[in-house]
Amino acid sequence: MRPNNRKSNQTRPVKITRNYTKYAEGSVFIEFGETKVLCNASVEESVPRFLRGKNQGWVTAEYAMLPRATHSRTQREASKGKQGGRTLEIQRLIARSLRAVVDLKALGERTITVDCDVIQADGGTRTAAITGAAVALQDALNKLVAEGKLKTNPMKSLVAAISVGVVDNEAVCDLEYVEDSNAETDMNVVMVEGGKFVEVQGTAEGEPFSHDELLQLLGLAKEGIEQLFDAQRSALESE
Amino acid sequence: MRPNNRKSNQTRPVKITRNYTKYAEGSVFIEFGETKVLCNASVEESVPRFLRGKNQGWVTAEYAMLPRATHSRTQREASKGKQGGRTLEIQRLIARSLRAVVDLKALGERTITVDCDVIQADGGTRTAAITGAAVALQDALNKLVAEGKLKTNPMKSLVAAISVGVVDNEAVCDLEYVEDSNAETDMNVVMVEGGKFVEVQGTAEGEPFSHDELLQLLGLAKEGIEQLFDAQRSALESE
Amino acid sequence: MRPNNRKSNQTRPVKITRNYTKYAEGSVFIEFGETKVLCNASVEESVPRFLRGKNQGWVTAEYAMLPRATHSRTQREASKGKQGGRTLEIQRLIARSLRAVVDLKALGERTITVDCDVIQADGGTRTAAITGAAVALQDALNKLVAEGKLKTNPMKSLVAAISVGVVDNEAVCDLEYVEDSNAETDMNVVMVEGGKFVEVQGTAEGEPFSHDELLQLLGLAKEGIEQLFDAQRSALESE
Amino acid sequence: MRPNNRKSNQTRPVKITRNYTKYAEGSVFIEFGETKVLCNASVEESVPRFLRGKNQGWVTAEYAMLPRATHSRTQREASKGKQGGRTLEIQRLIARSLRAVVDLKALGERTITVDCDVIQADGGTRTAAITGAAVALQDALNKLVAEGKLKTNPMKSLVAAISVGVVDNEAVCDLEYVEDSNAETDMNVVMVEGGKFVEVQGTAEGEPFSHDELLQLLGLAKEGIEQLFDAQRSALESE
Amino acid sequence: MRPNNRKSNQTRPVKITRNYTKYAEGSVFIEFGETKVLCNASVEESVPRFLRGKNQGWVTAEYAMLPRATHSRTQREASKGKQGGRTLEIQRLIARSLRAVVDLKALGERTITVDCDVIQADGGTRTAAITGAAVALQDALNKLVAEGKLKTNPMKSLVAAISVGVVDNEAVCDLEYVEDSNAETDMNVVMVEGGKFVEVQGTAEGEPFSHDELLQLLGLAKEGIEQLFDAQRSALESE
Amino acid sequence: MRPNNRKSNQTRPVKITRNYTKYAEGSVFIEFGETKVLCNASVEESVPRFLRGKNQGWVTAEYAMLPRATHSRTQREASKGKQGGRTLEIQRLIARSLRAVVDLKALGERTITVDCDVIQADGGTRTAAITGAAVALQDALNKLVAEGKLKTNPMKSLVAAISVGVVDNEAVCDLEYVEDSNAETDMNVVMVEGGKFVEVQGTAEGEPFSHDELLQLLGLAKEGIEQLFDAQRSALESE
Repeated sequence: MRPNNRKSNQTRPVKITRNYTKYAEGSVFIEFGETKVLCNASVEESVPRFLRGKNQGWVTAEYAMLPRATHSRTQREASKGKQGGRTLEIQRLIARSLRAVVDLKALGERTITVDCDVIQADGGTRTAAITGAAVALQDALNKLVAEGKLKTNPMKSLVAAISVGVVDNEAVCDLEYVEDSNAETDMNVVMVEGGKFVEVQGTAEGEPFSHDELLQLLGLAKEGIEQLFDAQRSALESE
Repeated sequence: MRPNNRKSNQTRPVKITRNYTKYAEGSVFIEFGETKVLCNASVEESVPRFLRGKNQGWVTAEYAMLPRATHSRTQREASKGKQGGRTLEIQRLIARSLRAVVDLKALGERTITVDCDVIQADGGTRTAAITGAAVALQDALNKLVAEGKLKTNPMKSLVAAISVGVVDNEAVCDLEYVEDSNAETDMNVVMVEGGKFVEVQGTAEGEPFSHDELLQLLGLAKEGIEQLFDAQRSALESE
Repeated sequence: MRPNNRKSNQTRPVKITRNYTKYAEGSVFIEFGETKVLCNASVEESVPRFLRGKNQGWVTAEYAMLPRATHSRTQREASKGKQGGRTLEIQRLIARSLRAVVDLKALGERTITVDCDVIQADGGTRTAAITGAAVALQDALNKLVAEGKLKTNPMKSLVAAISVGVVDNEAVCDLEYVEDSNAETDMNVVMVEGGKFVEVQGTAEGEPFSHDELLQLLGLAKEGIEQLFDAQRSALESE
Repeated sequence: MRPNNRKSNQTRPVKITRNYTKYAEGSVFIEFGETKVLCNASVEESVPRFLRGKNQGWVTAEYAMLPRATHSRTQREASKGKQGGRTLEIQRLIARSLRAVVDLKALGERTITVDCDVIQADGGTRTAAITGAAVALQDALNKLVAEGKLKTNPMKSLVAAISVGVVDNEAVCDLEYVEDSNAETDMNVVMVEGGKFVEVQGTAEGEPFSHDELLQLLGLAKEGIEQLFDAQRSALESE
Repeated sequence: MRPNNRKSNQTRPVKITRNYTKYAEGSVFIEFGETKVLCNASVEESVPRFLRGKNQGWVTAEYAMLPRATHSRTQREASKGKQGGRTLEIQRLIARSLRAVVDLKALGERTITVDCDVIQADGGTRTAAITGAAVALQDALNKLVAEGKLKTNPMKSLVAAISVGVVDNEAVCDLEYVEDSNAETDMNVVMVEGGKFVEVQGTAEGEPFSHDELLQLLGLAKEGIEQLFDAQRSALESE
Repeated sequence: MRPNNRKSNQTRPVKITRNYTKYAEGSVFIEFGETKVLCNASVEESVPRFLRGKNQGWVTAEYAMLPRATHSRTQREASKGKQGGRTLEIQRLIARSLRAVVDLKALGERTITVDCDVIQADGGTRTAAITGAAVALQDALNKLVAEGKLKTNPMKSLVAAISVGVVDNEAVCDLEYVEDSNAETDMNVVMVEGGKFVEVQGTAEGEPFSHDELLQLLGLAKEGIEQLFDAQRSALESE
């Protein structure tokens, strides 16, 4: 039995609060159960050096955990003097996922940076970050349209992400921490509306996994992500 | 006239939410108007190297701003690879303020680290951080008492902090950003219950300030801090 | 038509040279066509701090590219003062892949570090690194057995990796640079003998990819990796 | 009784040597008793990036202690790879104090950096640094006038600083190390000619301090700083 | 008796392989016995900031050892976050040696960087690096001539380097590791064709050395370097 | 004609002031004309990790230039976050030179660190540093003898260093800045009493130098260093 009697294809309660802080062009506080991430999208009217004069925009992301987002305190990366491998890996994943749904040419020579800061971590922080960041990005782009800086919103689709895994020989979606730490296989899946994949990252934590398990996990991921798209759309439709 | 018709000796609305996150031994979300800081106190059963075997505990603090806590995005210190001078100065101030009210001998060989992360900045982030951190520290220490690790709470008094300054030739307390950025003199005052000072830090931003102005500002600080002590006590008495 | 008339399920010529340098306990120079990686396995009779006293060993990896392994010179990470996100991501992947096939309890309290240094990069450096590192690891473990430090070799299976992708609407395996830079979808697959997965990492570079494309790519990966297992086994059987 | 029978309102012997090194535009070796600081002012014909095109100049400062300026050797910050919090805090204080007395518009688009390097530390290094830096700055500005680069010297007043504190229940000024390390309250005061304040930084080292103690300390600071202004003026008048 | 019955004035077998990698403008794999260094020369059509507009080119070098080039594994400098003193000292020596034989005016506003990466270290890595780098530089410059970017090759002479030392009271040239680690005196000599010196760096490892010993070592160095010039010329003449 | 009509074999006026600062176990301010270096020797009752339990001591050195020791201001290495190659090279040279004259076994398990901080640079800072550091080291060791921690002073000889070079086709010793910046050949020589060499480091700045020039320079170095030994001995004999 999963915690809170969740079914294997059922996500935790998802809550998306828009306009959470007042300065960011898009600001979303997203909760996947007890996992809580603040996603702030910032617009800057310039592009990184490697894109100057190329007539296109850029979307990037940064990720961090507050030191006590976790069970015991984690040392602050700013005081260590560098970002760890896990942090860099996750923020590169978030950024690729967001770029996959934005027409960078249509964005024009500007950069949108989405900062994903984990306030509380209970498994699935990177997937909550992607799912919340997509809404923050949508808001920031809509603001550019409202201000007349863009004619149409260059975001081609929503994008959302979920973790799936095998726990006690059962495939389940949206793992929380107690599940995640016992998972034999752990997979993060990023999809766009319509069901195509942006990223599939599966890792055998214990024994290698079979082709059949992979297919089963992908099926669960699809079911879970549909629930996330619903939550994103509801949030975006609300005032 | 001040924003929202505040009187010169009146703080912004202060809101203190305890138990904001679930892992930290003390977790306080404090709001001074639109300034919002998360203060998490973490207990560790060891002391820094320089105190080993000295039969006492330690209280320290770290401070950071989320990149988009500010009007425009600030580069993340973790990606820059070092904490800036302002950050180090503030976290040293918070730590000294907290240590001033804790009997470190009575704490025993353990360390309490209070992480103050600014979610939204509208002036007075360091004073909000100190005021919230004191409550988080109190909660963490009470937890040690409840767990039988300490016989009595080694915190000798509450501690709170406020900014005061001269804006348009008028002395006011608890400056918000629009005031702060126009202040001629800026002072941060940290007090314990009973009205004695832990820290007084006054800086002339424009013209140097006189002895009379200093006295006037200290008076305002005392009035403002009394309001903060009330807010701290109310929060601590509530369930 | 692919370069050199390669078939879609055909790897580049794979060449594995063992005992390439003389000090490392395992030293493999691996070539996937023009991609050339030196994989040195080093044994150390201790474990990282987080594993001390846990009665198990550790396997880890580091990855780097020589500055002129690439078309134009890349700045040396040692002179930049930090390893980039791509480097950290790849060396974490190599390390996980190797740990998936080693019984860490049976290894005892020792660490094996496999350094993968890219001498020349023509696409697929991380998959060549994993494939070569597995052989270097096997050699280092056999040496521990030969020296009487281990009774049996704790490596449970070979492990190998290949990239697959969609280029000009055709799914192909073991992409070289000119293919890789035009790929719409890029996937790295790590497998153990018998055909189970250790890692699956698929990324849409352009358009998102469908479930069918994913299945097709996985099939190609399996075919390609079988060729790599053959190359590994041949190398290990030779004197 | 204070060391050397000093009275509570009496500074240590102050010695200011101008033109101490030969390259700096202003070079002052200042001694407050056994505390010795070399203050070199350097003129550069450009401004930091954030001031470009703003038609004003900049004054900044750096502070460091030689490794053996102290009783036991302190690790060199250059070999640690970063400046500590105390260093950054002090150099920010020196820089603010100097900027408070310079008309930056009148300075024109140039930067003056004052390096304060502590040769020997016996308490009060930051106040000696400010007091010496003011003279070095004056010399550098006079040199710009002499060279015809400035019509008049943009320095509006001298600035000087002193430490005051409560030691063994007695308020005293210009604490030397044996006093400083036993002080209950420690305050650094920066003033301009005429007696107005630029900075007031008071810290309770042990018990919090009262309003009356604060007033008493400010009075002592004023008396001490008058002696420093005399020493600065004497030095500037001499050839 | 020296290892392999070498005579005191005899170098180890020298092998120079040109065009070792395919992207670098000059790529040389040089072996001094078991010491193996890859030297890649990269041409960039710009100069460092301090030379902009000065109408000349620049030649520089970087040096590194692969972590397991040595008997036991050395920590990777990229993961340490900085290059060590030995590394910086050696790469500065290589760069000066190369610049000594290039007419930087005739090179035009371009930079050639020679990366010397030690694949296997058995003593004399810096001298092998200089000797190999000279050939890689020659190849890169000839390529610029062949492409019509330079009219004539601006390299004025070959340059080569050898170590000499006193081992067991006998002066010998081209020390391998077992000799080097027992040497009383260690000297590295860099010469141009014709026998003049570019660098002489002698260090007493144990007892100071006399003027006579110095002369004897310089004589051996000259004999050894002549053998290196022969190897360089043979390599350059071959196809 | 040399500046100040110096003869080719004549050093600048050398002035050695002992006990310059009051905390260091040995503290020497050395002047070679306008080059001024403060050399502080610090004793620590422990050894670096790599020497623990090896029953011997260690002597090391650090070197730095104050930012305005030079004609124009040099950026502070502590604020850059790392020591440059030149700094590391020089401090390694100073340390080797000092270790060459100390019996490390006889020193016992303690470390002496000599900090050489350049107050003013006019050529020859590294040679002045070595020459002054030797006296500071002697004083620190004598103090250990006086305190009964050592029976006899483990320093076997004085050590001193000088620069020699070819300027305008004339070989001269102890080059000052205007000479140094025009030198064709630059050599630093470190000797012990009796005339044997500890280090010889010669560099062709322009044209390579001949064997004859080398001999001439070594002769001048010997003459110059004798003058330095005299200055060291005079200083050590004085009270």
